[in-house]
Amino acid sequence: MQHLPVKDNIENKDNNERPLRNLLFTLRFDGSAFHGWQIQHNAITVQQVFQEAVSAIFGSCPDIKGSSRTDSGVHANMFCISMKTSHPIPCERMQAAVNSHLPPQVVVTSVREVPLDFHARYSALGKRYVYKLHNSRVRDPFLRDRALWYRRPIDADMLNTVAQAYVGSHDFTSFCTLDKREIGDFVRTVSEFSVWREGEMVYFSVTADGFLYNMVRIMVGTLLFISEGGAPADSLPGIISACDRSMAGPTAPACGLYLDKVFYDI
Amino acid sequence: MQHLPVKDNIENKDNNERPLRNLLFTLRFDGSAFHGWQIQHNAITVQQVFQEAVSAIFGSCPDIKGSSRTDSGVHANMFCISMKTSHPIPCERMQAAVNSHLPPQVVVTSVREVPLDFHARYSALGKRYVYKLHNSRVRDPFLRDRALWYRRPIDADMLNTVAQAYVGSHDFTSFCTLDKREIGDFVRTVSEFSVWREGEMVYFSVTADGFLYNMVRIMVGTLLFISEGGAPADSLPGIISACDRSMAGPTAPACGLYLDKVFYDI
Repeated sequence: MQHLPVKDNIENKDNNERPLRNLLFTLRFDGSAFHGWQIQHNAITVQQVFQEAVSAIFGSCPDIKGSSRTDSGVHANMFCISMKTSHPIPCERMQAAVNSHLPPQVVVTSVREVPLDFHARYSALGKRYVYKLHNSRVRDPFLRDRALWYRRPIDADMLNTVAQAYVGSHDFTSFCTLDKREIGDFVRTVSEFSVWREGEMVYFSVTADGFLYNMVRIMVGTLLFISEGGAPADSLPGIISACDRSMAGPTAPACGLYLDKVFYDI
Repeated sequence: MQHLPVKDNIENKDNNERPLRNLLFTLRFDGSAFHGWQIQHNAITVQQVFQEAVSAIFGSCPDIKGSSRTDSGVHANMFCISMKTSHPIPCERMQAAVNSHLPPQVVVTSVREVPLDFHARYSALGKRYVYKLHNSRVRDPFLRDRALWYRRPIDADMLNTVAQAYVGSHDFTSFCTLDKREIGDFVRTVSEFSVWREGEMVYFSVTADGFLYNMVRIMVGTLLFISEGGAPADSLPGIISACDRSMAGPTAPACGLYLDKVFYDI
């Protein structure tokens, strides 16, 4: 008896008779292994390994849209990607298939179908970032590349009070590393900024409708600058209104930063 | 004017007129980077990087005693080393100096002086190990090499009840990978065994006066075997009394195991 060839249900074809679908992937990744999201020459990025995983299944990868341009070393608890395909693969099967081709530093935590006009970046209503700081005299091997090791004492409650100056709609030019990518409007609306301590960890959480390049890292760096006495506790409103990068504190290292959540109205 | 050579306070000499001191180092390390504690040919071990760090300060490293022979991939929240030296370096300075020469996966969390007859291994009254398991349908990139990823549902309370059979003085031959290192007495006294859940994490904690080779990993593996229905919930006393390795479950992977505490009466 001759066995018929078993055809895998996942095929590399884009049948135009099949309706186009828009898939929303949520990812979680350890950014220490990657040179950020966006594909680059001679450097491994999250976009690259994701596209390679999809290509391993479909034979090629459709155009994908990422929710953010995370920097080298920045982590994500939730990073979103939208991708249009006519392939009828069920979402759950897609998740398992992509995960089986991703390196251990990246995982797809969910896949679901969204309206065709959805775009992972432009449909985002806002994002939340969390910055993790390990405030201890002794470094922790389990937190290397996962949190900023910071030895000086920090008064998290004081910083939380100071940081409320960030909340509201402001021109955040002072908190932006200028480059060609940033043009036009520097006004962003921060809806929440919190600083709190849990044991030796200090967390900074910020939610806004959008973020300028390096904005969270400069916001945190400026709070640490104030914590160290580099500027008075009541100086933050003036630093914001100056619209001058040189007035703010240094850019905090990437290793402590996590894209924590992307908000959509779907 | 000629500058006199500045002599560093840390010198490579063992002056016999100085009294011999016994230093107790506590370490914390991410074991995923190491082939265990004990020095080996052609493999990086914790003992090797510690000796190299001491040698970088003293020029050579005195004989050191480790509290345990942790396996490849096993972590430590607290690992102890005793080392005799006549060098008068203060403990705090010794800690900072060694840490500056250790790789980021290892840190000395404290150094203190102990009686000359203290031995990191033989003076230990007992040890506690913790096994970490991530019980989720989706793997977590931040837990890779730090916890066992386990997809099947686990009833932690049920396993905690079952595991109380481990408590007491028993011959743990069923829970030992036999090798040349294990001779003589297989009786150990387990004073505590706890299983509990925190969100998607399930923790196993065991305290005993000593542990046989792979004992904790086989204890956990046997509980998981029972959890999966491989053996009845009331079978553990029989598995223990059988004194037969083939009766117990498989050896759980090293990545979830942490030497959590070493107990001394000093």
